[in-house]
Amino acid sequence: MKKITVKTSKPYNVLIEQGILSNCGKYISEVVNTKYVALITDDIVDGLYSEKVIKSLSEYGFTVKKYVFENGEKSKCSQNLNNIYDFLAKNNITRTDCIIALGGGVTGDISGFAAATFLRGIPYIQIPTTLLAQIDSSVGGKTAINLPCGKNLVGAFKQPELVLCDPLTLKTLPDKIVSDGMAEAIKYGMIRSRELFDIIASHDLSNYFEQADDIIYRCISIKSNIVENDEFDKGERMLLNFGHTLGHAVESYYNYSGYTHGSAVAIGMNLITQQAVKKGLCNELTSDILVKVLKAYDLPLTADAKTEELTALCSNDKKCESQSINIIICSDIGISYINKISFEEFLAFMNA
Amino acid sequence: MKKITVKTSKPYNVLIEQGILSNCGKYISEVVNTKYVALITDDIVDGLYSEKVIKSLSEYGFTVKKYVFENGEKSKCSQNLNNIYDFLAKNNITRTDCIIALGGGVTGDISGFAAATFLRGIPYIQIPTTLLAQIDSSVGGKTAINLPCGKNLVGAFKQPELVLCDPLTLKTLPDKIVSDGMAEAIKYGMIRSRELFDIIASHDLSNYFEQADDIIYRCISIKSNIVENDEFDKGERMLLNFGHTLGHAVESYYNYSGYTHGSAVAIGMNLITQQAVKKGLCNELTSDILVKVLKAYDLPLTADAKTEELTALCSNDKKCESQSINIIICSDIGISYINKISFEEFLAFMNA
Repeated sequence: MKKITVKTSKPYNVLIEQGILSNCGKYISEVVNTKYVALITDDIVDGLYSEKVIKSLSEYGFTVKKYVFENGEKSKCSQNLNNIYDFLAKNNITRTDCIIALGGGVTGDISGFAAATFLRGIPYIQIPTTLLAQIDSSVGGKTAINLPCGKNLVGAFKQPELVLCDPLTLKTLPDKIVSDGMAEAIKYGMIRSRELFDIIASHDLSNYFEQADDIIYRCISIKSNIVENDEFDKGERMLLNFGHTLGHAVESYYNYSGYTHGSAVAIGMNLITQQAVKKGLCNELTSDILVKVLKAYDLPLTADAKTEELTALCSNDKKCESQSINIIICSDIGISYINKISFEEFLAFMNA
Repeated sequence: MKKITVKTSKPYNVLIEQGILSNCGKYISEVVNTKYVALITDDIVDGLYSEKVIKSLSEYGFTVKKYVFENGEKSKCSQNLNNIYDFLAKNNITRTDCIIALGGGVTGDISGFAAATFLRGIPYIQIPTTLLAQIDSSVGGKTAINLPCGKNLVGAFKQPELVLCDPLTLKTLPDKIVSDGMAEAIKYGMIRSRELFDIIASHDLSNYFEQADDIIYRCISIKSNIVENDEFDKGERMLLNFGHTLGHAVESYYNYSGYTHGSAVAIGMNLITQQAVKKGLCNELTSDILVKVLKAYDLPLTADAKTEELTALCSNDKKCESQSINIIICSDIGISYINKISFEEFLAFMNA
């Protein structure tokens, strides 16, 4: 088993082990003070893993109340959130009980936000079952729902009590969903670790699983380190947004149905790096290697949308403070920095 | 001017001065880093004070976007919250901008919760215009909305940047709303300060305003002190719930339309103190004086609902942890303690 302790205001462990789902009750019983838990999951994951998880929880004496919602980004909304609140209230979940989020990013984000706000905060545990959720959304305490006018516009910082990652769950994912997560893994390599980048680059979508445990471990270690330094997203944490400002614009342009989050981030990473090369902030070789790796994981490099249309959408990004914008530049693989520029400078940069 | 610094995780000042509304721009400009603010208020308060507040804000260079909702507890709901989110998003409010809550408890609670969660948290300022909001809900960082199945079931701890109390606003309140707030003032006296209690007891609803500044100052000082010791409501802060567990049951029993919060708390304080006398935990004189003061402020002593029906409703209170309940007993005026008992013991206590 691999273990990472995330030393935020409230420290917690991330445990990574193939098959840990079947033994989750043991680890959960070590961190909570209740025998009463609310399991939140979507209909796809429910069919795959709920039985296994509930069996282990029952073995360790837990009473489990289960809430299942329809899979997909459209469920990360206030209506589903209100249904979760009603479910928690009707099952008399109290402040000392616990929510368990079993699933991908949508499940983790909305369950985490429910945990952050129901009764002004109750404990929660993340059991992420997609690569994206395992290496990104389940760690760091960012929880959220979408508004009709934008993604993740409502949320809270709320650290979980525990994160359990079972790499075996990746085996049931469609390739497209693995690619989606791999874009974020490539991002971690680009911003902070050539070693991780090289492991990813020496594999592709067909054989990455050989290194899945190590990739997950390295990604979470990087995220954990960055989040520890900047839990509330005031500085260094912005590095995690490499490719994301343009990525969000791509997602928004296609109404969140044209590209997955990871695909959009892949496009964002490629576009910003191409411009960085033009401006002499990054060498061409780095850009070429990035392109090669994105292709190896079946990730897109560009979208049909014009650059001007995408940059215009960036002003709505919640990371965009009033008149300025923080862009993340990788000067080399593993080396990144935050560049705070005016919105006009950003437009000029993108149209170089 | 009276000033109290609340030393929570993020310290902030409460300023109390008659007429401070006309000068709010000055004090707000000293604590925020933006010239862009969202003013949230209800339709009654809007008619009374928005113009004055916006005038002062404009004098200090602020651009004000105003959101007005229908007054009343029914607006403390997820629908109104979603409307506020949309308003904030459409007006491009960013993380460095600021929400100003102008009004009573409903306005402060829902605006504070919007501030706690929009973009995962933006700054907010409280300008409470009722006695209840000035001495209770605007200080301490508890924000919330109601669910169809219960009050304040969703919320967050979020301290404001500043609280501005203008006692002159009390002059526009109907007597019933003053009584509502005075119940909480009496509570502060009961749990922590005979001096405050005596000031209140030596006045009544017709002449309390002579001492309004001092009463507000003393109440907030007590709350501030308790909140500093227990920001996240794990211990001492429960003292503030004197009369509230039964009070919430009264509100719930009458479907939140029979009694105001303060009236229900008055009933709760009286009922629990009567039982404490029966059990020898409080002397009869204390109970008699409490009754006298509640009457002087036109507050009710009992409801028609049977004690058994009210106690049954107490198990749904969010302060009630699984099988136990924390009741607050005042053994004398100004002296209180928390008594954690089983729900069965609570039933026996109430039926003594």
